[in-house]
Amino acid sequence: MRRPLLVLSALASLSAALSAAASAPVYNANITTEEVVAAQAGWCNALVSISTTYAEKGRDAATTLAGDILDQAYGYNLGPVLFKPTLTEAPQTFRTTREGALAYFVGGNPAFPKDSGFALKGWTACKAENAAIHINGDVATTMGNVMITNRDGSVTTVDKTWSYKKTDDGKLRIVLHHSSLPYRAP
Amino acid sequence: MRRPLLVLSALASLSAALSAAASAPVYNANITTEEVVAAQAGWCNALVSISTTYAEKGRDAATTLAGDILDQAYGYNLGPVLFKPTLTEAPQTFRTTREGALAYFVGGNPAFPKDSGFALKGWTACKAENAAIHINGDVATTMGNVMITNRDGSVTTVDKTWSYKKTDDGKLRIVLHHSSLPYRAP
Amino acid sequence: MRRPLLVLSALASLSAALSAAASAPVYNANITTEEVVAAQAGWCNALVSISTTYAEKGRDAATTLAGDILDQAYGYNLGPVLFKPTLTEAPQTFRTTREGALAYFVGGNPAFPKDSGFALKGWTACKAENAAIHINGDVATTMGNVMITNRDGSVTTVDKTWSYKKTDDGKLRIVLHHSSLPYRAP
Amino acid sequence: MRRPLLVLSALASLSAALSAAASAPVYNANITTEEVVAAQAGWCNALVSISTTYAEKGRDAATTLAGDILDQAYGYNLGPVLFKPTLTEAPQTFRTTREGALAYFVGGNPAFPKDSGFALKGWTACKAENAAIHINGDVATTMGNVMITNRDGSVTTVDKTWSYKKTDDGKLRIVLHHSSLPYRAP
Repeated sequence: MRRPLLVLSALASLSAALSAAASAPVYNANITTEEVVAAQAGWCNALVSISTTYAEKGRDAATTLAGDILDQAYGYNLGPVLFKPTLTEAPQTFRTTREGALAYFVGGNPAFPKDSGFALKGWTACKAENAAIHINGDVATTMGNVMITNRDGSVTTVDKTWSYKKTDDGKLRIVLHHSSLPYRAP
Repeated sequence: MRRPLLVLSALASLSAALSAAASAPVYNANITTEEVVAAQAGWCNALVSISTTYAEKGRDAATTLAGDILDQAYGYNLGPVLFKPTLTEAPQTFRTTREGALAYFVGGNPAFPKDSGFALKGWTACKAENAAIHINGDVATTMGNVMITNRDGSVTTVDKTWSYKKTDDGKLRIVLHHSSLPYRAP
Repeated sequence: MRRPLLVLSALASLSAALSAAASAPVYNANITTEEVVAAQAGWCNALVSISTTYAEKGRDAATTLAGDILDQAYGYNLGPVLFKPTLTEAPQTFRTTREGALAYFVGGNPAFPKDSGFALKGWTACKAENAAIHINGDVATTMGNVMITNRDGSVTTVDKTWSYKKTDDGKLRIVLHHSSLPYRAP
Repeated sequence: MRRPLLVLSALASLSAALSAAASAPVYNANITTEEVVAAQAGWCNALVSISTTYAEKGRDAATTLAGDILDQAYGYNLGPVLFKPTLTEAPQTFRTTREGALAYFVGGNPAFPKDSGFALKGWTACKAENAAIHINGDVATTMGNVMITNRDGSVTTVDKTWSYKKTDDGKLRIVLHHSSLPYRAP
């Protein structure tokens, strides 16, 4: 007969505790799902912005914008970024440096002669669909598809993995980016 | 004139992305504020339960209950717990082992001769007030006061720090517990 | 003139402190580089073992072994694994469940009709070369190439990203695995 | 008869993998035991430095030094610090702000009228002895005793808990500090 009273008492105690906690300042270093999804949308918007800027203002303006985006959205300030872009080939498959990433997005760097500028290819829309999301502290990882639409309306789908790290300033930065064209059986 | 449209477009894109993400399975190892507050309330309820059990059923029953609580609520299964109870003295100040923690709560262990059983002292109520809370991944730390009420209605306030680690099974366990009587100037 | 003495004093103090700390028990949840490299070698050995078992003992034995390896080396016990195998196609590109992963490695599951059993293809050697490694707490991520050798001596190179999570039992489990064939310009 | 060869092969594979990994750049956000011990020695040296500066150059110089130390060694730039100094009383027990911490160490702030300046009390030596250490990613926690020696040679022992967070710049900062005088049975 006493058990229900104990449960009620525990609930009241928890409710009071929650109210008290609500007034305590909280420092929380963790990433939320909402932040992850916003970061993905930000990457998509950035890709389209670089394409639009290239079409309207030329390569120099697009290169400046791409550099700004890299500095804000990627973690090259932290160390080597694990970046395998969609269309790179050996021996320059992995772009662990900012220079290699910029070359991939806008081309024009003789040190990366096969880069023609992925972000300059007339992209007009971009969206991400996640197969699943992992969150561990200040690091989150997503895997899924990204669909990017060209100015002629054709859609390219890639298999995409991203990891984000939330830095001390509260921003999410891409620290891992593995993109690949879907496999097609011969 | 274009900026507002761009912003609206970005918001629409984010909104669509949030809907898509909502359907993706999420693995999240992080602790939430609600889990922390519930764990504090759980500790308080456990303390009162041990006192009640001791009064109604005697020391053996209280010892069994205290052992079960230690096994569920503390992280001795992970390694040494950073536990400085309120009333311990050198050279047994720190209770990094389960045996030392159990001795503190229920006494009766000749290896810890000064332990008289903190949890047996007739506690009837307990609540926590946090000065602040820190959350870093699967570890959360709180600092503040805990007020415990005796059966005669007198209230003892202690300064309390707890850290919790969320283990693979999704439970929070106390891995740090520093409790001290408030300083009084001489 | 006093500064060198202060520095010496600080060094002596640090040295003494290091000695004292050496005797304190340490609980450390973090992954080390050595553990990451050992986990990669373990994956390679497992792939070759499944191929060898298939050749010597047939599909049932290989399937049993592959299931055991999945249960030990992957994190399906934690939740959905971010797994994009080398040769999968939409709509079954991502194998977030144990069943989908097992089907990929050994085939024979009518629910995954395009899977012919990647681990059964006569692999005799396997090694990983990392472009870079990231370690954040109990999660580590690598990106680079994996070279796998067939029984005729031909070598297949894939672009590979792995993340490992160290669980409470101290083991590393793969929680992310993105593998793709290198891009070749048309 | 084959098992030993397989083991040797696995060891050779692991050895080769370790060599390969040694050349890959590694980003590691984790704290090491050595960094924790160095941070403790740094705190001790800072306490003695403030006392020495006060004796030799007066309160203003000591206050400037203490402020610099707080800015470098504590995490007030991140958010509220969980700081319960040894000698504070309610309602100012917890010093979650930089102002409250500085008042405790050097006094002279009318908003904290009971603070007489803990760091000004003629400390000449300080050392930490850990009961145990916990490391979880970029956060580490220690519990144990700190012994501080006065200019007359008397030693005060306190029960001390510290947590450190390693920020993006690679520095350890104190984010939790609970200090209390040892309990003495009445």
